[in-house]
Amino acid sequence: MKRIGFIGLGTMGAPMASNLLRAGFPVTVYNRTAAKCEPLASEGAATASTPRAAAEGQDTLITMISNDVSIREVFYGEDGVLAALRPGMIVIDSSTISPGLVKEIAAAVEEKGACFLDAPVTGSKPAAVEGTLVFMVGGSADAIEQSRDLFDTMGRLLLHMGDNGSGAAAKLAHNAMVGIHNVALAEGFSIAVQSGVPADKFLELVKNGSAGSKQAELKGRKIIDGDFSNQFSLGLMLKDLKLASALSDAGGVPTPALELAKSLFQAGYNGGFGEDDLSSVVKVYEAWLGRRIGE
Amino acid sequence: MKRIGFIGLGTMGAPMASNLLRAGFPVTVYNRTAAKCEPLASEGAATASTPRAAAEGQDTLITMISNDVSIREVFYGEDGVLAALRPGMIVIDSSTISPGLVKEIAAAVEEKGACFLDAPVTGSKPAAVEGTLVFMVGGSADAIEQSRDLFDTMGRLLLHMGDNGSGAAAKLAHNAMVGIHNVALAEGFSIAVQSGVPADKFLELVKNGSAGSKQAELKGRKIIDGDFSNQFSLGLMLKDLKLASALSDAGGVPTPALELAKSLFQAGYNGGFGEDDLSSVVKVYEAWLGRRIGE
Repeated sequence: MKRIGFIGLGTMGAPMASNLLRAGFPVTVYNRTAAKCEPLASEGAATASTPRAAAEGQDTLITMISNDVSIREVFYGEDGVLAALRPGMIVIDSSTISPGLVKEIAAAVEEKGACFLDAPVTGSKPAAVEGTLVFMVGGSADAIEQSRDLFDTMGRLLLHMGDNGSGAAAKLAHNAMVGIHNVALAEGFSIAVQSGVPADKFLELVKNGSAGSKQAELKGRKIIDGDFSNQFSLGLMLKDLKLASALSDAGGVPTPALELAKSLFQAGYNGGFGEDDLSSVVKVYEAWLGRRIGE
Repeated sequence: MKRIGFIGLGTMGAPMASNLLRAGFPVTVYNRTAAKCEPLASEGAATASTPRAAAEGQDTLITMISNDVSIREVFYGEDGVLAALRPGMIVIDSSTISPGLVKEIAAAVEEKGACFLDAPVTGSKPAAVEGTLVFMVGGSADAIEQSRDLFDTMGRLLLHMGDNGSGAAAKLAHNAMVGIHNVALAEGFSIAVQSGVPADKFLELVKNGSAGSKQAELKGRKIIDGDFSNQFSLGLMLKDLKLASALSDAGGVPTPALELAKSLFQAGYNGGFGEDDLSSVVKVYEAWLGRRIGE
C-alpha cells in the first residue's frame, strides 16, 4: 500500500491524517509542535522529527500548513522536504497559500522529478473529520488520477481547476465569498434587530428566502446564541482574505467587497477575536450597535 | 366567500391575483396601465377604473405596487383607496416600501376603522406563479389569522415579525443581503476567471462549498450563459437597497457592505441594466475586467 508522509496536524490536518490511517495507509506524521503527533501515533502513525524525515521514502507527501511563511520553512528550510524528494513522488499541498508561492514550490518539486498538486479544501473541521471535504486541485491530471484513492478517503468531491496555482486561486476566490457572506449576515442581522425584528424570525426568513447562504445555515443560530466556538478561525479567514486581495491586485481585478470584508475581519482580529470562529466578525457590528444580536 | 380588491398587476401582483381567482375568491383588480387587467379579466376578475373603486365594498384589499410614490398615490390620491375603507376591512400591502411610510399609511387606515398589514414577500416571479411566496408580516396577529386563507393561497410560509413596519424592515434587511450576495458572486467569478479558473468549475465549487448561496444557485449558471432575463430587476433591487440604506441611516446602523452594494447597483443602473435581472450587477465587473465571465 502507498506510503504517506503527512506534515501539519492542525484543526484540519489531524483528522485528515486520521482518516488515511483508518483506511489502512501507513502514515508518517510531522508537526512543528511535536505533542500534536501523539494522538496520531496512538492511532498507529509513525512519527518523524523533521519535515525531511516525514517525506523520506514516501510515495506521497501531504502538507496542511497554515501560512506562506511556515510552508516555506517546511519545503526550503534546513531538514526541509525538498531534500527528500525523489522522481515519481507526488506532493499534495492542501494548505491555503498564495498561487504565486504554489508555482514557485511546484517548480522546485518538479526539479526533483516529483510532481506537485495544489489541493486546498473547503469544508471546515466537521468535514475533515467525516472525510467529506471538497478538494479544488491545480496540477497534472495524471497525478490527480494516481492520487484518487487518497482524495476519496479524505473528501467527497474533487474539482480539477487547471494548472498549478489554479487550485489555490479557486480557494481564495471561494473564501472571499465566504468572508463577504459573513459580513452580509452581520449587516442583515444588524438592520433587522435595530428595526425591532426578532433575530430568530429574521434568520428563519433568510433560510427560507432568497437571501439564504451556507454561512447563514452554519453560523446564524450560533450568532444569536453567542456561540463563537472555532470551526474556522477569524484569524485564518483574515489570512485568506489578504491572500485573495493580493491575488486580485496581481491580476488587476477590482474587488471592493473583498477589500471591505478584509478590513472588517482585520477590525475583528484587532478586537481580539482572531482565535474565535470567523462568524465573530459580527462582533464588530455588535460593538458598533452597542448591543448583542441575540439580545 | 371573502371579496378581494387587488391593486397592482406587475410581475408579482398578476400571478398573485391569478392564484386568488383560481382558489375561488371573487377578485376585483385595478392597475394604472389598464391593459394589464385584461388577462385577469379573462380569468374571471372584475375590473375597476380607480383604486377607490377596487377597494369599494371588499372584505380585503391587497396592494402590490413598486414604489413609495405610487403607493402614496394609490392610498392618498384623488379616488385613492382611503376613501373606500370601512370598519372591519383588512388592507394587506405586499409592496416593498419604507417602514416609515408603512407606519404612516397604517395609521391612516386605522383611522377608518380598518386594519393594515405590511406583508412584503420573498421569492421572485416563479414563486408568485406557484403560490410559494414567503410573507414577512407586520401588524396585528388577529388580522393575520383572519387573512390566513389568502396568505396560504399565495404563499408557503408566513413569518409574523411584530408591529406595523417590521414586515417592511425585515424585507429590506433581507434584500440588503440578496444585493450583497450578488456582489459577492460577481467578485468570486471575477477573481476566479482572471486567475484562469473556468467559471463553470468555480460555480460547482461554490455550490458544493461553504460559499454557497441561494443567489449562486439561482443566478450562477445564468451569469455564465449571459442570460439576464428579468426575474427581479436590477432597478427594483436598487430601489430596495436605497430603502434599506435609508432605514439603516434612520436607525443609526453602520452598513458599509450595503452601501457598497447600493453604489454598484447604481452603477449597473446607470450602465443601462435597470430592466435586466438583478444579477446583471456582474456586468459592472465585466466592464471593469474588459471580459465576460462566461468567456
